[in-house]
Amino acid sequence: MSHPPVRIGIVTVSDRASRGEYEDLGGPAIREELTRILTTPWEAVTRMMPDEQPLVEGALKDLCDQEGCCLVVTTGGTGPAPRDITPEATEAVCDKILDGFGEQMRAVSLKFVPTAILSRQIAGIRGRSLIINLPGKPSAIADCLQAVFPAVPYCIDLIEGPYLETDEAVLKAFRPKHAAKKPS
Amino acid sequence: MSHPPVRIGIVTVSDRASRGEYEDLGGPAIREELTRILTTPWEAVTRMMPDEQPLVEGALKDLCDQEGCCLVVTTGGTGPAPRDITPEATEAVCDKILDGFGEQMRAVSLKFVPTAILSRQIAGIRGRSLIINLPGKPSAIADCLQAVFPAVPYCIDLIEGPYLETDEAVLKAFRPKHAAKKPS
Amino acid sequence: MSHPPVRIGIVTVSDRASRGEYEDLGGPAIREELTRILTTPWEAVTRMMPDEQPLVEGALKDLCDQEGCCLVVTTGGTGPAPRDITPEATEAVCDKILDGFGEQMRAVSLKFVPTAILSRQIAGIRGRSLIINLPGKPSAIADCLQAVFPAVPYCIDLIEGPYLETDEAVLKAFRPKHAAKKPS
Repeated sequence: MSHPPVRIGIVTVSDRASRGEYEDLGGPAIREELTRILTTPWEAVTRMMPDEQPLVEGALKDLCDQEGCCLVVTTGGTGPAPRDITPEATEAVCDKILDGFGEQMRAVSLKFVPTAILSRQIAGIRGRSLIINLPGKPSAIADCLQAVFPAVPYCIDLIEGPYLETDEAVLKAFRPKHAAKKPS
Repeated sequence: MSHPPVRIGIVTVSDRASRGEYEDLGGPAIREELTRILTTPWEAVTRMMPDEQPLVEGALKDLCDQEGCCLVVTTGGTGPAPRDITPEATEAVCDKILDGFGEQMRAVSLKFVPTAILSRQIAGIRGRSLIINLPGKPSAIADCLQAVFPAVPYCIDLIEGPYLETDEAVLKAFRPKHAAKKPS
Repeated sequence: MSHPPVRIGIVTVSDRASRGEYEDLGGPAIREELTRILTTPWEAVTRMMPDEQPLVEGALKDLCDQEGCCLVVTTGGTGPAPRDITPEATEAVCDKILDGFGEQMRAVSLKFVPTAILSRQIAGIRGRSLIINLPGKPSAIADCLQAVFPAVPYCIDLIEGPYLETDEAVLKAFRPKHAAKKPS
């Protein structure tokens, strides 16, 4: 009960939002969705970056290594346009890529729009942190997060992060029986 | 109305076809299918190459950089055999890989044959061109092209290429509302 | 009829099993499932390795290059944990990666557990051998093997390996008509 709250990084990647020309809608949409899903106390550590690969890499490293975020979620910069570099930055800082996240997010988005195949969203592990790319469009954020989040708490267990619990009325996390938490 | 026609590259990759031992069926099948799909005036720029990676890379670069093709479609050379090098050549010349294309083409082909998982087809962006690998088998070409083409015009918008329009009775291209063409 | 039996490598990757702290259940589960599927005479060449990338790479190379295995199947070490290195070892020794295998195994496993997206299973070609990563959990091994095996015999044909036949009551291998075996 005296544990400090779990920390989750939220990174908005957008030239326009970072110049203030455009309200950041993606970051708040992620925060809202995670608030709905998680019952474990948590706090957001937010960053706003332009579409510059070295800057995004730096933000991801900082959130994982210095800020102690067990989960870092990005929004924006995953399309085919020349300025879209979020997946490149993510891949560059990760030890392992988990292809199933991108496949699953595209499969779910394909039910809504055929242009889902243009998304290059990936997820990967850096040390004891899981990094997940989400789309930039707020309406697609909840769809993608719900598509993959049932696997997130067990993934974070496997990389020795904190034990995350969800509101099962919203989204049921899956763990194999042996991984269920012992009463403490 | 005075725009020159859009240029689309069609590359047949086949040792036997390039030696004239075998009639090229893949290239004409692509041309026929694109003619059915597109209402925007276009012209084909065709190439026939043996399964040699440097030659295929050279053809792809030439079609993208010199010939001004906004779209380059290949046929052949995507299997597991030692001579199959089309995906390697494609990856080598692309700035970004769009994994969703390969996933979607395999998912559609899996409805017909379980050996669809042997296909290594990819798609990617080189500068302002989209390159897509299609299978070598003519009957599979239309299936794969229809599976991904609804996303192609918007992809080409995003890389600042020409505005492609399709015959909606054949295949409806998807664009977000903000990307629909303004009347000119 | 005087052909020697086809050789298939089975590699268990597990720190605990290789120290004898844990019974190897994955290797025997693969052997049992392949015995059910194949009618072609075959023999298993088994290896047990800790989760050490150079050792797993060495075992894979040995089974492909020295032991003459046309197929090598691994179990274990495909998750997101730091010690999970089976996909890295597989990728390092392969000439070509066949993304469709991992996609298909995850798609099938997703019907059972949402954590299937955490699996990094891949398959690839080394010379004349096909290497496939399976999960560590015995109950998931049969599901994954059945999901991809219909494409395995034709894949091995394409890399010039032996002609594998299956018990069609268990699992029907698919080959295009031109690839069906001529009566000898």
